[in-house]
Amino acid sequence: MQTNKFRIAIDAMGGDYSPISEIEGAYLAINDPQHQDIDIFLVGDEFVLNKKINELGYDKNKLTVVHAPQQVTMHDDPTDVIKKKKQSSLYIGAEIHKNGIVQAFASAGNTGAMLAVSTMILGRIKGVSRPTIGSFFPSIGKNPVFVLDVGATVDLKPRYLYEYAVMGSIFVEEMLSIPNPKVGLLNVGEEESKGTELVKETYKLLKESKVNFIGNVEGRDIFAATSDIVICDGFVGNIVLKFAESFLTLLKFKVKEFSEQGMVNKIKTALMVPTLKEILLQFDYQTYGGVPMLGVDGVSIIGHGKSSPLAIKNMIIRAKDMIIAEINNKIETALIN
Amino acid sequence: MQTNKFRIAIDAMGGDYSPISEIEGAYLAINDPQHQDIDIFLVGDEFVLNKKINELGYDKNKLTVVHAPQQVTMHDDPTDVIKKKKQSSLYIGAEIHKNGIVQAFASAGNTGAMLAVSTMILGRIKGVSRPTIGSFFPSIGKNPVFVLDVGATVDLKPRYLYEYAVMGSIFVEEMLSIPNPKVGLLNVGEEESKGTELVKETYKLLKESKVNFIGNVEGRDIFAATSDIVICDGFVGNIVLKFAESFLTLLKFKVKEFSEQGMVNKIKTALMVPTLKEILLQFDYQTYGGVPMLGVDGVSIIGHGKSSPLAIKNMIIRAKDMIIAEINNKIETALIN
Repeated sequence: MQTNKFRIAIDAMGGDYSPISEIEGAYLAINDPQHQDIDIFLVGDEFVLNKKINELGYDKNKLTVVHAPQQVTMHDDPTDVIKKKKQSSLYIGAEIHKNGIVQAFASAGNTGAMLAVSTMILGRIKGVSRPTIGSFFPSIGKNPVFVLDVGATVDLKPRYLYEYAVMGSIFVEEMLSIPNPKVGLLNVGEEESKGTELVKETYKLLKESKVNFIGNVEGRDIFAATSDIVICDGFVGNIVLKFAESFLTLLKFKVKEFSEQGMVNKIKTALMVPTLKEILLQFDYQTYGGVPMLGVDGVSIIGHGKSSPLAIKNMIIRAKDMIIAEINNKIETALIN
Repeated sequence: MQTNKFRIAIDAMGGDYSPISEIEGAYLAINDPQHQDIDIFLVGDEFVLNKKINELGYDKNKLTVVHAPQQVTMHDDPTDVIKKKKQSSLYIGAEIHKNGIVQAFASAGNTGAMLAVSTMILGRIKGVSRPTIGSFFPSIGKNPVFVLDVGATVDLKPRYLYEYAVMGSIFVEEMLSIPNPKVGLLNVGEEESKGTELVKETYKLLKESKVNFIGNVEGRDIFAATSDIVICDGFVGNIVLKFAESFLTLLKFKVKEFSEQGMVNKIKTALMVPTLKEILLQFDYQTYGGVPMLGVDGVSIIGHGKSSPLAIKNMIIRAKDMIIAEINNKIETALIN
């Protein structure tokens, strides 16, 4: 491939609204005057994709469709995908990244499968024990807070958590332009003596490292943005992430319940809901545009299953930013030394 | 002591608004026509309490003040309290429960100290390895969801989680009148094969037990009320609880931020806030009136630090209900057999 452009592959069959969201997101990106330096490779069933692109009235020549007859669902087991779905868009996307056709691969599909396939095909960065997935949480600070790991690894060692801290610091410094970002260790109290054996050992490692470690943080410190990065094991992180995503469901339910308690409440609610919705848009995870599989030897990005076209576009831009920032080189340098 | 009344001790120096909240809450309870069968023992500095009771205009003869010259703060280490604060209201409250002067003891103070002191002085129910603290979470179901453990024990064994399931089931069945309540095990996925070694082993234990075990539940299932009870280790539970309590802070911040973006937003917000506040009252943890230290051989109840007089009253009624329900006998029978 001879091109000066950023070559990014998109799993067109990944998200809940695929392939429409993926197609529209791809064209949002390549039609943006600021991003004329991006070449998109849309991976998925050729027949389906070409038909949809036509129906939606886009110019087929502005991107490359890469055929992949199989599809990975949200319920597929990662191990099964590796064994039986080598012709899937998720698998082929990782392969064309490995062999250099593209410089990054992004999917709004099955997170577990994406991590397993990316780790297997692309390998790990030197010095990394376990690749990890982080997630941005809204906060009362100027920036969202980056929490990792949110589900990659459940039984782990202090060294892994230390590596998460290093990788998270480099990612946040580059992506959010926060110099020397603060790292907190998620725990049940501030004191060094608190928590499980795992976090106590990790505390010691982090205290002696070059990471800007501010000590233990508690559950309430995530939204409070006490630190820029919060480190935890994937068991806790995954539970906290899914719990956080369910807050809005609870809030909507309580609003609805209230509105059904008589005519006065119905009117009060009707007056309130449009403003509330406007405010809650800021809680939207989509604007962050996906998060990378940190530690994987490549640029492999996972987006929310419910990604809208705008979320897909933001995911593509995130991929481009990751390529430019050369984050993986920085991670290797930090962990090898 | 010869009386047919329910004798309940209250730590008057415990909560953030002590002793005012505690005094007012106590009188709310004893002045309630439905609760004329309660005798309150207010434990704290005699001089301070008598003065406040006078100032607030209550009838001093309607309750008993028990003198305790020391006070436990929220920052006191539980071990220090046991060693150095034997004259504190928290310690003496537990002692007069142990020696039979009262049948229950409640505090809105230091949770860790309350657990340590209760466990040491009152001992454990036969068959219980570790006493536990649960917490009610609001939900989209008819009832709140009871999550335990939320901070008592961080390094634990499958057997402990099984005991939590048994104790939680009995407590919820008696207190919320839910027959054979559903128990979920907090995990990162629904499949039996998911999660840490601890939860995988616990899954097996629960599956073979008499508990109404519905399997693994995820972070989003708490608010969704997929089960009536959610079992987890104290590390995860404590982080989730503190994280949940910080959600309203984030929401308030976002509302304020929105209102500061111009005059139109200011007006929109002003119209919305009173209704929103009314709705958010339903998220108020205070209405649940404290939770027991389950597994302790006595009725030892802990309330939220920010307990209002109404919360204190509800805590007293919770204590009375616990005495009536004879929960501890039921726990012993279930765990010994």
